[in-house]
Amino acid sequence: MANAGVLLLLVAVPTLSPIPSLAMTQDFCVADLTKSETPVGYPCRPPASVTADDFHNVGLAAPGPVLDPFQTGLATAFVTHFPGLNGLGLGATRVDIHPGGVVPLHTHPAGSELLYVMEGTVSAGFISGATNTVYIKTVSKGELFVFPQGLLHFQYNIGNTTVVALAVYSSHMPGLQAVDFALFKSDLPSAVAEKITFLGDSEVKRLKALFGGRALQEKGILHTVV
Amino acid sequence: MANAGVLLLLVAVPTLSPIPSLAMTQDFCVADLTKSETPVGYPCRPPASVTADDFHNVGLAAPGPVLDPFQTGLATAFVTHFPGLNGLGLGATRVDIHPGGVVPLHTHPAGSELLYVMEGTVSAGFISGATNTVYIKTVSKGELFVFPQGLLHFQYNIGNTTVVALAVYSSHMPGLQAVDFALFKSDLPSAVAEKITFLGDSEVKRLKALFGGRALQEKGILHTVV
Amino acid sequence: MANAGVLLLLVAVPTLSPIPSLAMTQDFCVADLTKSETPVGYPCRPPASVTADDFHNVGLAAPGPVLDPFQTGLATAFVTHFPGLNGLGLGATRVDIHPGGVVPLHTHPAGSELLYVMEGTVSAGFISGATNTVYIKTVSKGELFVFPQGLLHFQYNIGNTTVVALAVYSSHMPGLQAVDFALFKSDLPSAVAEKITFLGDSEVKRLKALFGGRALQEKGILHTVV
Amino acid sequence: MANAGVLLLLVAVPTLSPIPSLAMTQDFCVADLTKSETPVGYPCRPPASVTADDFHNVGLAAPGPVLDPFQTGLATAFVTHFPGLNGLGLGATRVDIHPGGVVPLHTHPAGSELLYVMEGTVSAGFISGATNTVYIKTVSKGELFVFPQGLLHFQYNIGNTTVVALAVYSSHMPGLQAVDFALFKSDLPSAVAEKITFLGDSEVKRLKALFGGRALQEKGILHTVV
Amino acid sequence: MANAGVLLLLVAVPTLSPIPSLAMTQDFCVADLTKSETPVGYPCRPPASVTADDFHNVGLAAPGPVLDPFQTGLATAFVTHFPGLNGLGLGATRVDIHPGGVVPLHTHPAGSELLYVMEGTVSAGFISGATNTVYIKTVSKGELFVFPQGLLHFQYNIGNTTVVALAVYSSHMPGLQAVDFALFKSDLPSAVAEKITFLGDSEVKRLKALFGGRALQEKGILHTVV
Amino acid sequence: MANAGVLLLLVAVPTLSPIPSLAMTQDFCVADLTKSETPVGYPCRPPASVTADDFHNVGLAAPGPVLDPFQTGLATAFVTHFPGLNGLGLGATRVDIHPGGVVPLHTHPAGSELLYVMEGTVSAGFISGATNTVYIKTVSKGELFVFPQGLLHFQYNIGNTTVVALAVYSSHMPGLQAVDFALFKSDLPSAVAEKITFLGDSEVKRLKALFGGRALQEKGILHTVV
Repeated sequence: MANAGVLLLLVAVPTLSPIPSLAMTQDFCVADLTKSETPVGYPCRPPASVTADDFHNVGLAAPGPVLDPFQTGLATAFVTHFPGLNGLGLGATRVDIHPGGVVPLHTHPAGSELLYVMEGTVSAGFISGATNTVYIKTVSKGELFVFPQGLLHFQYNIGNTTVVALAVYSSHMPGLQAVDFALFKSDLPSAVAEKITFLGDSEVKRLKALFGGRALQEKGILHTVV
Repeated sequence: MANAGVLLLLVAVPTLSPIPSLAMTQDFCVADLTKSETPVGYPCRPPASVTADDFHNVGLAAPGPVLDPFQTGLATAFVTHFPGLNGLGLGATRVDIHPGGVVPLHTHPAGSELLYVMEGTVSAGFISGATNTVYIKTVSKGELFVFPQGLLHFQYNIGNTTVVALAVYSSHMPGLQAVDFALFKSDLPSAVAEKITFLGDSEVKRLKALFGGRALQEKGILHTVV
Repeated sequence: MANAGVLLLLVAVPTLSPIPSLAMTQDFCVADLTKSETPVGYPCRPPASVTADDFHNVGLAAPGPVLDPFQTGLATAFVTHFPGLNGLGLGATRVDIHPGGVVPLHTHPAGSELLYVMEGTVSAGFISGATNTVYIKTVSKGELFVFPQGLLHFQYNIGNTTVVALAVYSSHMPGLQAVDFALFKSDLPSAVAEKITFLGDSEVKRLKALFGGRALQEKGILHTVV
Repeated sequence: MANAGVLLLLVAVPTLSPIPSLAMTQDFCVADLTKSETPVGYPCRPPASVTADDFHNVGLAAPGPVLDPFQTGLATAFVTHFPGLNGLGLGATRVDIHPGGVVPLHTHPAGSELLYVMEGTVSAGFISGATNTVYIKTVSKGELFVFPQGLLHFQYNIGNTTVVALAVYSSHMPGLQAVDFALFKSDLPSAVAEKITFLGDSEVKRLKALFGGRALQEKGILHTVV
Repeated sequence: MANAGVLLLLVAVPTLSPIPSLAMTQDFCVADLTKSETPVGYPCRPPASVTADDFHNVGLAAPGPVLDPFQTGLATAFVTHFPGLNGLGLGATRVDIHPGGVVPLHTHPAGSELLYVMEGTVSAGFISGATNTVYIKTVSKGELFVFPQGLLHFQYNIGNTTVVALAVYSSHMPGLQAVDFALFKSDLPSAVAEKITFLGDSEVKRLKALFGGRALQEKGILHTVV
Repeated sequence: MANAGVLLLLVAVPTLSPIPSLAMTQDFCVADLTKSETPVGYPCRPPASVTADDFHNVGLAAPGPVLDPFQTGLATAFVTHFPGLNGLGLGATRVDIHPGGVVPLHTHPAGSELLYVMEGTVSAGFISGATNTVYIKTVSKGELFVFPQGLLHFQYNIGNTTVVALAVYSSHMPGLQAVDFALFKSDLPSAVAEKITFLGDSEVKRLKALFGGRALQEKGILHTVV
């Protein structure tokens, strides 16, 4: 409990404090974003530099930029922008899905997600890897849906008004991997994308054009596809 | 990956499925609330009994009952009422703080808390155990505040309208220990409560009357107080 | 260290053993597959029922059944068939990829994978969720490649002989989610699959026919797609 | 097992060592207290700088300074003074409770506590957050009592001689939060302290005077209390 | 926080309690020793059956039985005899080493050990697996020594009086594996013991006679030694 | 999900990319071996410096140097030589046991081991610490055997051809502690080695000569042995 060194000092100057301090280094670990991450988070800033602002975040007060063609806005509050979250197993995203919009098929490799709908109505679902069963529900204002860690999932607006939802994760940095981006926005050659998905060549090329996968990589490792 | 037994069966009846199944037991663990908990959660229900309803919860769509004298309503979504949360490191509470109301000084022994304010304005804070520093902020609509695991914290409404907030925790059952309840609603004898807090006898008795600590325990272990 | 009760008993019958036993319950936890799983594994069998056979597995000595159209055989050694693995953070698969064959795009939601190639040559890669960078290498006999937990990855044979590889995972049940199976072998309606991937309708229907997604679910939740 | 690089070197100089070394970096992680902590502990010192002294600590051989008004001495052995504990999940405190003395109501946010009484007799107890049940026992010389992580607990001397006890924690830095210090030694304004505890104003001011809460903060954030 | 079902009930009978309960299932997990263990501990007993006795243990108040030829008494407090420890990451042993006595070379596979000497003086040490360096210290009354998880370690009395020490572990069941017992008290055939240690046959047979390894196993798997 | 700052930038330059990036820092943590380890692994290298080579390792393609007198070659792939393993809970060793050779009695303090035999036949076994039961099996080509974390285990060749096996561990650095090396290759004085094992003096000295334990340490702490 007590830090003996500090106690001795304070006992020596009793007029300043009738009760000696029990001083330990810290009981939180606010991220020092200037240092290298470790597998479990960032090193801690010195406690003396920490203020209440480190535990407060206003980044979700307004919608994030809209991602075309998904018609969905995303604003995030992960450790890189909210250093007080470091090591606490929590992170958040504000999701605004316009009418007709979608959060496309994706996973969070490092966390589960709890979705709370604040406005509108979504269809939310995930797919079991073990049985390929689809677990899907209509989720309305005030309701929750949970997506287990690492499984492919999606949401789409099934109403006529914008869906506003808060997604909270079991990690300060849960990661995000969208299948469309992995296949069609990456530098994966079309021939490899086709080989590993059984999609047709014209469909892959149409989607690479839509999502911006770079054409010049097409030649790079193509020879490795048999 | 593949379950060889299942594969052999399916290969024997190829007309039903051109692609043999890759069947594993499960990729989530929905709580079987009829069985005993373990230190990390409930045993899993058989996957065949699980439906999308297990991952969906409507318990926070309306305010929970108001706790007097706090003038705060609480509705919860923990594993005991939302079995899909089991083992996923997430739980939630809806907090409705009426004007003048408060979420009094308390801890969550088993989880950190991320508070998202949906309506109104609160003062939210926690106290460092190491330095007794108070980290306190005004948190308005759309803003977040995070309370590190196990530290004493509080919120109170500083506006004229009801605060509506979502609190999400890094545990499917984060626990809750309110200091007032521990001292004045429990069966702790007044003499012990005074001994371990330095509160005065009349103040302890006033608060035991307010919070409902039972009088008949007063005699029980009183003799152990010197 | 010592179990006092057992020690007293043994001290009472010293002729059987000159050194009293230091008996504790167990130092492993062989799965009792007849009981319900928990989030961290199966309950343990009584130590007296455990034999060396529980720690031994011959399931990877021969190739597993070949999955068409992938031309890949998979044989597995996870906790459900190898109870000694329970709770130890290890599981394995034998992968036989015929010439032209592929392990299609997939994730393991609950574990990282270390691939060791025993025969032949593969192209192995994974895609970063954060940057969509593709990390891909030719992996030959005697070489290793590691796939971080939860990320989309793949392997395909780039030689003229069958690839034989051992994949070891950081979990006794790492899970497996193949993108093709999630989209086209599941009961996900075509309209939903198209909504969440931007794939064209004819391509989705072609792949559902290939992978065996059931037609009668097509009507089920179709109305939820706008 | 073997570090191939080191082995090659040693094979080249076999006369120095008939058995090549199996050299890996380390099998402990003694804290480098000059570097920033991470959420799981300090970076490790280079193994070559580590000596047996890093695993040895004499700080509990004598009582720690007595905290007035508790009449309790505390001496600690946490990672900051005992670097060999880093990452091992253990820390310790020596507690000397004089006749009439008390370890007041407090929590350890980051660890459970196992108390072993070496001299004298205490009343030791904790309070359940879930049910407000008080679990309290008289604990005499040679006996143990365990306090689950994060719960409010206390001890007080019920004999005529000084209690000497060893408290061991499941963390190299379990933290300590005393309710009296959080409320009355911190810079929490009286009005806020009253708001979040329902304590009366005169009682709060009496205890702030006793514990040394600073008067000049009284004005700081007082306006936020309604 | 609040359990809505319970709250509604209590609101319906307000005369019994002016403050509705915040009831959650539990904030500890006392072992139900009648059920099967899991990899992380025993299932929990129902909270209503738990009493303060479950958190209290008197098993270390007297020395444990003396193990010949070590001249050391061991008394233990692990989860199997102290169910309140379940899942809390703590366990304890009382060690009484008579003059000339020893705690022989052993490991704890599942926990680190913090040794606190209460009477007498020991030599305590452990050996690094990475470098074979021996870390050894004389540890006197009131001093601590820590042994990192899984490493071979030992203590022996270097004074003329009995050493009395408390060993606390970072596990409710840290395990214990003594090298002598593994080799010479087990049913390992002498030829195998010699093969895997390079000890001579007469020395192995002398120690098997001392420690009680059973002779009739000598034939069992002997043929497997080449 | 989205990093708002990056999104704003990309929205401002839409001609470069029709789909704004979802950029987060990283979804793996390749070891920066130039920085100090932490209890859970090395700090991460900046993602921009990471290439596919960091996830690829060729160190096991050939046998490692042969350790005399064990007649066993070991080649390793741990985080120190394979930085992509950092934090992923996996590491590997190639074991080549010549006819008559042995992997002597040892533990891995920080990981379980899954052994896969690729050529030849071994006898593989471990010993329970709780009951001293020996679990031993003949393991042939294509078969697996698992050794639970921290327990003493061994393998020896029981055929006429070299055994080639892959050992995979549940840690990127599982550690290795061979009993012979701890006792006879370390600087442990003979008198201490005898005291803690009950081995005879001539046997200890014979084995120290065989394994290279240094003679000049004999005097160092000898006086501590009574």
